[in-house]
Amino acid sequence: VSERARLMRVALGEAPADLLITGGTVVNVYTEELLRWDVAVAGERIAAVGPDLAHLAGPATERLDARGRVVVPGFIDGHTHVDFLVTIPELLQEAIPRGLTTLITEMAQPAAALGAAGARWFLDVLAAQPIHAFATAPVIAYLTTDDGTGAPVVSEAEMADLLAAPGILGLGEVYWHRFVPEPKRLLGLIERARALGKTVEGHSAGAHGAKLNAFVAAGVGSCHEPITVREAVDLLRLGMCVLVREGSVRRDLQAVVAIRDAGVSLRRVALASDGISPPDLLAHGYVDAIVQKAIDLGIPPVTAYQMMSLNPAEHFGLDGDLGGLAPGRFADALLLPDLRTVRPEVVIARGRVVAREGRCLVAPSPATLPAGLYAGPRVGTITAAAFRLPAAGPTARARVIRTEGQILTHEDEAWLPVRDGAVAADPAQDCLLAAVLNRRGAGLRALAVVRGFGLREGALASTISFDTADLVAIGASAEALAAAVRRVVELDGGLVLVDGQGHVRAELALPVGGFASAAPVREVARGLAGLGDAARALGCGLANPLLPLETLTFQAIPALRLTARGLLHVKSQQYLAPLL
Amino acid sequence: VSERARLMRVALGEAPADLLITGGTVVNVYTEELLRWDVAVAGERIAAVGPDLAHLAGPATERLDARGRVVVPGFIDGHTHVDFLVTIPELLQEAIPRGLTTLITEMAQPAAALGAAGARWFLDVLAAQPIHAFATAPVIAYLTTDDGTGAPVVSEAEMADLLAAPGILGLGEVYWHRFVPEPKRLLGLIERARALGKTVEGHSAGAHGAKLNAFVAAGVGSCHEPITVREAVDLLRLGMCVLVREGSVRRDLQAVVAIRDAGVSLRRVALASDGISPPDLLAHGYVDAIVQKAIDLGIPPVTAYQMMSLNPAEHFGLDGDLGGLAPGRFADALLLPDLRTVRPEVVIARGRVVAREGRCLVAPSPATLPAGLYAGPRVGTITAAAFRLPAAGPTARARVIRTEGQILTHEDEAWLPVRDGAVAADPAQDCLLAAVLNRRGAGLRALAVVRGFGLREGALASTISFDTADLVAIGASAEALAAAVRRVVELDGGLVLVDGQGHVRAELALPVGGFASAAPVREVARGLAGLGDAARALGCGLANPLLPLETLTFQAIPALRLTARGLLHVKSQQYLAPLL
Repeated sequence: VSERARLMRVALGEAPADLLITGGTVVNVYTEELLRWDVAVAGERIAAVGPDLAHLAGPATERLDARGRVVVPGFIDGHTHVDFLVTIPELLQEAIPRGLTTLITEMAQPAAALGAAGARWFLDVLAAQPIHAFATAPVIAYLTTDDGTGAPVVSEAEMADLLAAPGILGLGEVYWHRFVPEPKRLLGLIERARALGKTVEGHSAGAHGAKLNAFVAAGVGSCHEPITVREAVDLLRLGMCVLVREGSVRRDLQAVVAIRDAGVSLRRVALASDGISPPDLLAHGYVDAIVQKAIDLGIPPVTAYQMMSLNPAEHFGLDGDLGGLAPGRFADALLLPDLRTVRPEVVIARGRVVAREGRCLVAPSPATLPAGLYAGPRVGTITAAAFRLPAAGPTARARVIRTEGQILTHEDEAWLPVRDGAVAADPAQDCLLAAVLNRRGAGLRALAVVRGFGLREGALASTISFDTADLVAIGASAEALAAAVRRVVELDGGLVLVDGQGHVRAELALPVGGFASAAPVREVARGLAGLGDAARALGCGLANPLLPLETLTFQAIPALRLTARGLLHVKSQQYLAPLL
Repeated sequence: VSERARLMRVALGEAPADLLITGGTVVNVYTEELLRWDVAVAGERIAAVGPDLAHLAGPATERLDARGRVVVPGFIDGHTHVDFLVTIPELLQEAIPRGLTTLITEMAQPAAALGAAGARWFLDVLAAQPIHAFATAPVIAYLTTDDGTGAPVVSEAEMADLLAAPGILGLGEVYWHRFVPEPKRLLGLIERARALGKTVEGHSAGAHGAKLNAFVAAGVGSCHEPITVREAVDLLRLGMCVLVREGSVRRDLQAVVAIRDAGVSLRRVALASDGISPPDLLAHGYVDAIVQKAIDLGIPPVTAYQMMSLNPAEHFGLDGDLGGLAPGRFADALLLPDLRTVRPEVVIARGRVVAREGRCLVAPSPATLPAGLYAGPRVGTITAAAFRLPAAGPTARARVIRTEGQILTHEDEAWLPVRDGAVAADPAQDCLLAAVLNRRGAGLRALAVVRGFGLREGALASTISFDTADLVAIGASAEALAAAVRRVVELDGGLVLVDGQGHVRAELALPVGGFASAAPVREVARGLAGLGDAARALGCGLANPLLPLETLTFQAIPALRLTARGLLHVKSQQYLAPLL
């Protein structure tokens, strides 16, 4: 109340502004006009806007000369996954200078790895940052079974509580193909989200016609998956908010940009990253690059700015606070050299100058795990014996998970040698052993054969894994697997590549819950590059071997996945024997 | 949950639709397209939309043939005052056939007359209707002092409770000129509304520049007062939702319609009535007439439909449920003969056909006051002696409230005759006595002199009065005033015109709290016409003498007002002696 009262006094000229941005051309995302406006800030919010507000300055008012500059609202990434590899404060050191002033992230990793307590900790980290950082409730952790207890990793009651938290804007992405055939498990949470005035994010890739109608009828309000203009228009017609994805997982802007010529209103179209990897962030930029690309591809600049400010803000019901340069809104603004050059010279968030010329000027709040929340991966004592797939003959016929591209897998088969009564990897036909180890102390482990990594020797292990947050590894021998896993445990979690002798060739410690490094983005990117280089030196043909490794456990996408319970056939949801 | 599950089953073809609208051209307010679409309904909501949904029908499915017809979303009146003169169910009998499927109304009268309990009763009436009916929390009752207790008519705690009620969408209209100079009383409630995800409606007529910025910075989100394109654009630029008013109090559409050529986005522009009187409703129509006029004045039809569906729905955060024809939304739709003819042939609300060809097919839920909530006006025993304004001389100099038009007043003066030691009305110079009587039993009364009504004899009394809900009367003699007031009390509230002999010439009983008739709209309109005719027969020169009478107590608009505490100078908030 006192904050609002002061805003009013500043607007009325009864108290001086804290910050005055003068002489700039303001992009008004409400009217779609360019206006020669000043912006007066008091505390964290905008007190007044208008053609000449010089009289609102006092002796202590900070002034920003925006003459010759364009002032746009701070960028909102409406759907992202910045819950792993780097911590939020380290991410923000790089993301804020690129114009990010609001992020809305999934939080599958902290929730899957550390349960509801991890989700709460993550929310606390988000709330402590110098920009607006929100999350959506972790549907995937709720749908994932803890292999030890048989209960969801995050319970329905915990999800209901999380939904009510101020830092939670809605229910996280709901995968249509898991939800539509069996809606019961989620409908109660969807209703709760809606009753709280919050959103339900959707993942409708591949849903059309009846299935898409059913998905939307359930109360799902957005999708970030369209990869064609046709799909995007279909979603818009059903009243959905479409978040066009341009990030590390996929880049869809080029294919979807022609929506500008489809004759449809773009008011419900937003731009989002759906996740940005440390190397991509450093090499290509982030929200700045996304908006720049939209403009370069022919989206009118004001429309492009709306797509990363007002439009996502409206979708999340935040537009009274965020998404435009108007009185009462948070003072989140970027000064750009001109309308078509998305290179923030100054970034203002919550009323403060937080970055200049690419340099972050604030210290984001650290993300330290509270004592007792995480004690490293609890996988028991690991020797090569842990990775025995017993078989009788001189050879055995195995089911094979064949990875394709980054995430997809196919069903395959192979005849493999049997040594000492167990199936051996056979790098000659690109067949490695894959293992998933429950890391919550349940003692469960599963083994299978995987193809597509190309590693000639050694092993690669990770405590980042989709859905389950278990420890996942692939390797050319049981001994190498054991060495890689032991090193991961020593590190309290991380990514490790060992060679055929079990020597560590590259590693990245992830001591924050097993899913994130505490190091700066640049260092993490270097670590990842080192892992990729080392893997390639051992024969791996993949540009990024980590994503197919981390998604071996990902139960949402066909065909075969490996969890600590066994080899899962996604479509039938049946567990299959690893050997035929 | 089970409702959503059934929607999904219907969309998937696993259960038959309840209602299928086939063959029509659907106005898609999300994309701004016209689509040859069917609409399948299950229960109260839309299950699916698409080019051919015939397969979703079962033997019991009701079918609506929309071939050759245009299907638009039901109309939302985003700002109205339908809390007096007629009850909600009687209003809906007339309003539903004209396309109204959602209304958002102020509730100043029930709240002022009956306090928070009256507001709660009114919310119950709204919630029981066959269409969506919401209210905003009664700011005016909160800002009005009960002359008996000195406390607000509705307390801050009661307002805070009301704000949390599901039927309350936000804080009712805040008058800037009462709020900005002294924001303290309202800022807490504004914060509460916003924390609940609800809106704050504004009344910014006359606010510009610094004052308008301060008003918006406080958290106010809409205004229905712009009367020029310039004003409307100024509000839009500040991120406000503009509700262009076209109703009984004013008609601003003609003046504001050129906003279509102002080069600004219209996504935050809505159309609203700001109140519709029974005679206007019958003579000119309602939401149908508003949209029709917008189209006739050159607003593109799809834009006009958006302005009375999606745009107000988004403003109130209702667009997941209302405002467009999409899965999961309530099935609120109108069948129109063509895109430019806003004459609903069929009205569907909450999945049911509620009107056809102008006839209402549902019986709106009755609005009966619970016993004990209202016991008629408690003004004590009334004789002519109640209306004595004591004065000494043969003549006295009086301050005069001079009414102008419908609502405005000016300060004036007059020399009036004194008889038996009291000032007498002097119809020859159009000076009548005006009286306000506290009707909550506080015994307070105030008298003053009023000019502008033109009544030669008799008196006019009303229990509808703005802000206070007190009993207000004007008359050419103390005896006539007493006769009119006594009759109003006999009726348990109402509008009464008596002649010079104290005989009733016309009357309309308002037994519902003193502010509404229980009769149909048509009968109330006849009663109002009768009162006007009778008043004119006694010399009154006003087209509608009731509004200036009812607004004599209205403390929000200059210059002089009369309350039961005395003669109020609005700008200075000082009470003045009625005689100089």
